[in-house]
Amino acid sequence: MEFGCGGTKMENEIIKYLSKYMTISKELEEAIIESAFIRSYKKGTILLEEGKISNECYFVIKGCIRSYYIKDGNEMTTDFFTEEQSVTPSAYGKNIPSTYYLECIEDTIAGVGTPEQEIEMYQKFPEGESLARALTETIMVKQQDTLADFKIASPEERYLKLLKDRPDLIQRVPQYQLASYLGVTPESLSRIRKRLLKRQSS
Amino acid sequence: MEFGCGGTKMENEIIKYLSKYMTISKELEEAIIESAFIRSYKKGTILLEEGKISNECYFVIKGCIRSYYIKDGNEMTTDFFTEEQSVTPSAYGKNIPSTYYLECIEDTIAGVGTPEQEIEMYQKFPEGESLARALTETIMVKQQDTLADFKIASPEERYLKLLKDRPDLIQRVPQYQLASYLGVTPESLSRIRKRLLKRQSS
Repeated sequence: MEFGCGGTKMENEIIKYLSKYMTISKELEEAIIESAFIRSYKKGTILLEEGKISNECYFVIKGCIRSYYIKDGNEMTTDFFTEEQSVTPSAYGKNIPSTYYLECIEDTIAGVGTPEQEIEMYQKFPEGESLARALTETIMVKQQDTLADFKIASPEERYLKLLKDRPDLIQRVPQYQLASYLGVTPESLSRIRKRLLKRQSS
Repeated sequence: MEFGCGGTKMENEIIKYLSKYMTISKELEEAIIESAFIRSYKKGTILLEEGKISNECYFVIKGCIRSYYIKDGNEMTTDFFTEEQSVTPSAYGKNIPSTYYLECIEDTIAGVGTPEQEIEMYQKFPEGESLARALTETIMVKQQDTLADFKIASPEERYLKLLKDRPDLIQRVPQYQLASYLGVTPESLSRIRKRLLKRQSS
């Protein structure tokens, strides 16, 4: 379902977010609002399936998108994308099958982009390309840090970091998905939480 | 040490690499060659230290740069950057102290960029920005996959994937650094290798 005129507030959210990275001219703002298809998805919607071609990237305005793999019949959650985060599937615009799934685990409102839209936008507004570069660099550096953190931290340290950086996730996300995201079993996660609670109360 | 005219061959390597992403005009090519400071570093050179400001990013033409943290007095290796890979420190151009180290673990030749150079280049050549966006997107997607792989794979699977994707690393890198990079102890890595050898021979 696409938002019609009712989407204005949502589109303002996108512009507000992008303005953190550079001054957005009135013309670029209008082009972004026109081109971005703001869509809303019900909880449980699968946006991308393993084996399927991916021609859409997402900017989460409200809600939560989860990425997961199925390995030996088990779901393995690798990431959660919430407000102001963007999701570019590995296979986006590449005509190769995706190796993972994307699912809305809450009712979600997102800006949706396609490769064609992007090309058109960059041709009309070269400054849009500067914006994309700045955004992508920021995401790249964050990812680099996330991977390094994941490697050097113990499971308990990973949980504490999550508590600090994304406390909302702990409330929003089912425990078994959170455990998988932290690279531990649900039992280990439960032990970590008990241990921390005990330490707090003593 | 900077390469003078002798750097031409090295600079051609950079142009060849960048041409994979878009057509490089003669003017842009000349600007890249002029702006990129090709430098050579001896094995053991520390390019960045924990706590220091980072104002350089690197494109490896030949050699290997390792990123590592020091945690509780121990080195924890998080990545290796070899030929045709670029290293943008998390703190690059941000005036905040780095949380990790970068070290040349081989004699290394690299193109070195600074934030000032980048800005000047993008102003003169807006297509340079397209190039940077395309490059950064590719790196971002690869990193995303690396993190997901790291989460869902067992240590043995990680080792097998490394054997397949970057077989050279296994020869080039000290075993204790490789173990840390794979998120296992040197003893575990040694057990994994023995197990695989045994399986091959039986």
